[in-house]
Amino acid sequence: MKVIVDLCIVPIGVGVSLSPYVAACEKVLSQAGLKVVLHANGTDIEGEWDAVFAAVRQCHEVVHGMGAPRITTTIKVGTRTDRIQTMEDKVKSVKSKLGEVRIEGA
Amino acid sequence: MKVIVDLCIVPIGVGVSLSPYVAACEKVLSQAGLKVVLHANGTDIEGEWDAVFAAVRQCHEVVHGMGAPRITTTIKVGTRTDRIQTMEDKVKSVKSKLGEVRIEGA
Amino acid sequence: MKVIVDLCIVPIGVGVSLSPYVAACEKVLSQAGLKVVLHANGTDIEGEWDAVFAAVRQCHEVVHGMGAPRITTTIKVGTRTDRIQTMEDKVKSVKSKLGEVRIEGA
Amino acid sequence: MKVIVDLCIVPIGVGVSLSPYVAACEKVLSQAGLKVVLHANGTDIEGEWDAVFAAVRQCHEVVHGMGAPRITTTIKVGTRTDRIQTMEDKVKSVKSKLGEVRIEGA
Repeated sequence: MKVIVDLCIVPIGVGVSLSPYVAACEKVLSQAGLKVVLHANGTDIEGEWDAVFAAVRQCHEVVHGMGAPRITTTIKVGTRTDRIQTMEDKVKSVKSKLGEVRIEGA
Repeated sequence: MKVIVDLCIVPIGVGVSLSPYVAACEKVLSQAGLKVVLHANGTDIEGEWDAVFAAVRQCHEVVHGMGAPRITTTIKVGTRTDRIQTMEDKVKSVKSKLGEVRIEGA
Repeated sequence: MKVIVDLCIVPIGVGVSLSPYVAACEKVLSQAGLKVVLHANGTDIEGEWDAVFAAVRQCHEVVHGMGAPRITTTIKVGTRTDRIQTMEDKVKSVKSKLGEVRIEGA
Repeated sequence: MKVIVDLCIVPIGVGVSLSPYVAACEKVLSQAGLKVVLHANGTDIEGEWDAVFAAVRQCHEVVHGMGAPRITTTIKVGTRTDRIQTMEDKVKSVKSKLGEVRIEGA
């Protein structure tokens, strides 16, 4: 089962600067061979369900291993059986509709 | 690794009534032997990481099997290495602090 | 516009124990006259859109005021125009379907 | 109060293709003068708290106006008082740390 995920890992108890932990997760995800796109509020990931969630688990292990006693993570998960869709497809699909938008009263 | 999760599964393309799909997921989670508490915006789950995420995957499979062509799910995941904490502990911990709260200007 | 919300506020840079901050938010939400149900991974809230989001903003202000330099919050928001639905309705609706669930192969 | 938000609006009861609704929200957000970056699992937004949340409310109104009887939305919200940080800063901060990452056993 293919999955498109948005992953946002927040280590707690390590102060205010979280980027070293997020960078470590980027490395874990890339080394797992997943398609990964970093954005301002998380990381978009595309891959097979088991590979993606094994990597998410490894992210938790690595971030705890870096000294974070507590982690709170938010994951958005999308699956579909009607057709194959990539992350690029999703963005393109929205952008192709922008010309048709008519907002009432706007 | 123990995990406390909030799971919110939203089938898309099956109309407005989602409760049959959520009920099916409740069944999947219970049959997996996980501690499960349904609330208004999702389901709180406590268990071992691999058992929890295997059950989440099974929820997606079951909901697709019920006819949903697309699913979008939101998962909040908490892990900690400093101490063992149950779902009841989390709620009690907040409630025990309610008496001490002083909000300035309120 | 009525809204049902799940709110999870995570202060960053204040150590591992977050319950005093969550308790303060509970107080803010209750004092705003909102219907509030605390659960293991957040707080379910029911109310009018503007009242709910004004209270969420006040939570951020109060938590920053308590000394948190950074906050990351996750909000799930549900609105519907087809019918009026309370938080209790949502839970009851799922529970009423539990008897009908048949999971293939289970 | 400045805020960086990730917004993911999911209309329910309108079939499987959601891009026209997401495109309408993009328009609402842009017309509100907000900094907006579309990605595969949502839209990153930067702006003042009240302007951002007024636009999010307008997105719900517009999507309901397009015929969606039900909407479920996920919002990640970040605020900080220790320093000013843009969406680009957040991404750059992670990327600058990638070279330093050493994952044990990897």
